[in-house]
Amino acid sequence: MDHIQLFPGERIDQLYSQKIKIIQSSAVFSFSLDAVLLADFAQVRTSSKAQIVDLCAGNGAVGLFVSQKTHAKITEIEIQPELCDMARRSVTLNRLEEQITVCQADLSDSLQFFTKESVDNVLVNPPYFPVAATSLKNPNQHLALARHEIATNLATVVAMSSKLLKTGGTLFLVHRPERLTEILATLVHERLVPKQMQLIYPRMGQAANLVLISAKKDGRPGGLKIKSPIVTYEGDKYSPYLQRLLYAK
Amino acid sequence: MDHIQLFPGERIDQLYSQKIKIIQSSAVFSFSLDAVLLADFAQVRTSSKAQIVDLCAGNGAVGLFVSQKTHAKITEIEIQPELCDMARRSVTLNRLEEQITVCQADLSDSLQFFTKESVDNVLVNPPYFPVAATSLKNPNQHLALARHEIATNLATVVAMSSKLLKTGGTLFLVHRPERLTEILATLVHERLVPKQMQLIYPRMGQAANLVLISAKKDGRPGGLKIKSPIVTYEGDKYSPYLQRLLYAK
Repeated sequence: MDHIQLFPGERIDQLYSQKIKIIQSSAVFSFSLDAVLLADFAQVRTSSKAQIVDLCAGNGAVGLFVSQKTHAKITEIEIQPELCDMARRSVTLNRLEEQITVCQADLSDSLQFFTKESVDNVLVNPPYFPVAATSLKNPNQHLALARHEIATNLATVVAMSSKLLKTGGTLFLVHRPERLTEILATLVHERLVPKQMQLIYPRMGQAANLVLISAKKDGRPGGLKIKSPIVTYEGDKYSPYLQRLLYAK
Repeated sequence: MDHIQLFPGERIDQLYSQKIKIIQSSAVFSFSLDAVLLADFAQVRTSSKAQIVDLCAGNGAVGLFVSQKTHAKITEIEIQPELCDMARRSVTLNRLEEQITVCQADLSDSLQFFTKESVDNVLVNPPYFPVAATSLKNPNQHLALARHEIATNLATVVAMSSKLLKTGGTLFLVHRPERLTEILATLVHERLVPKQMQLIYPRMGQAANLVLISAKKDGRPGGLKIKSPIVTYEGDKYSPYLQRLLYAK
């Protein structure tokens, strides 16, 4: 186990479709299907000279998964020290210290780590829910920060992504369909042209509950491709697509 | 046959899921699956006091189908005299003269038929393709006008829809996913808030080729629902959903 310390409540999870092991904690933070779907959707640069940034990185799941399909350097930026610590121990556990760096910072300060417009790909699984006076925030502060726009919001995430990305670079984003109109407008406002979208439906016959979007910095307007639908469940099992993604079946 | 005249090349088609008969012509204009899907998607007002307008009405298919689920008055606006003539004869053929009026006009002149902001629902299956110097336009002028933005364009269609609709009224639109970013921005610009969307995929595993959108005049921003996916084909047959829509099977 390479002398990786686990704190109380922590466990090590593995997707059987990947060699990656991830330190998780149901009390603090566990990655979700959203992270798996985003990592699979992201067509990142593969060159060892490329730079990939994972914003709102949480326990590092998206960057850890994506490391399996690129030689690029990956930087994970996460505001919560406990989650950065989990992510760093997962990086060590997988012997990925050469490829992945974990930075504890507010994403608004990301330009302290990079030259402006120097990054090839940004990945982000941001908090989905606006903070309203009436919204039921999670009493667990770690999960509240991950799910609600407390420490950051969509406009800030997208603006920072655009500042980081070089011309022709691509942002990969997972979010909720309820906010699609706002998401597309915000991307365009920050010179990020939506190029691909993919919807996740829990079951056939149900409304979508997630949307994956790629957007190209200074891309040519128009030409959005809405890729084939992803259906999560068939009957009481994951769909064949999800089974491949999770269990390599 | 109620003395309805058919011109050379014309035929009468019927969807077996509806009682409606429609005069078609492969040389001039035939309605497509898009019209059937739009009419099914549209949740129109049902009151006999409501006003529904079908813009870019073609041979009147959308209005004719929708007449079966509402008592509202329906006005079809179409610029091409030959298509208006076909639509009028279909209205007579179905004895719907009391409910449906066909107006031959440029849609920019729609306010000659209505008080501003007095309409409950607008339906539109507009030309999908921008006119570019290099674009392959259909040599058939009737089809060219129906498919390419020659006589009108998205911005004009949406602006007129907004002028017609009362506060709380709803536009129902069918279009191409490639232009989704522009469509949503244009709707918002004209005070039409996207509320429902549904994607049509030719087959599972393929990209979407049509998108249905409803947008509410002066609606509360956000809260977009992306309804369950529609898949057109399974194997070499229409999907069960399409079979119900077309053949009432």
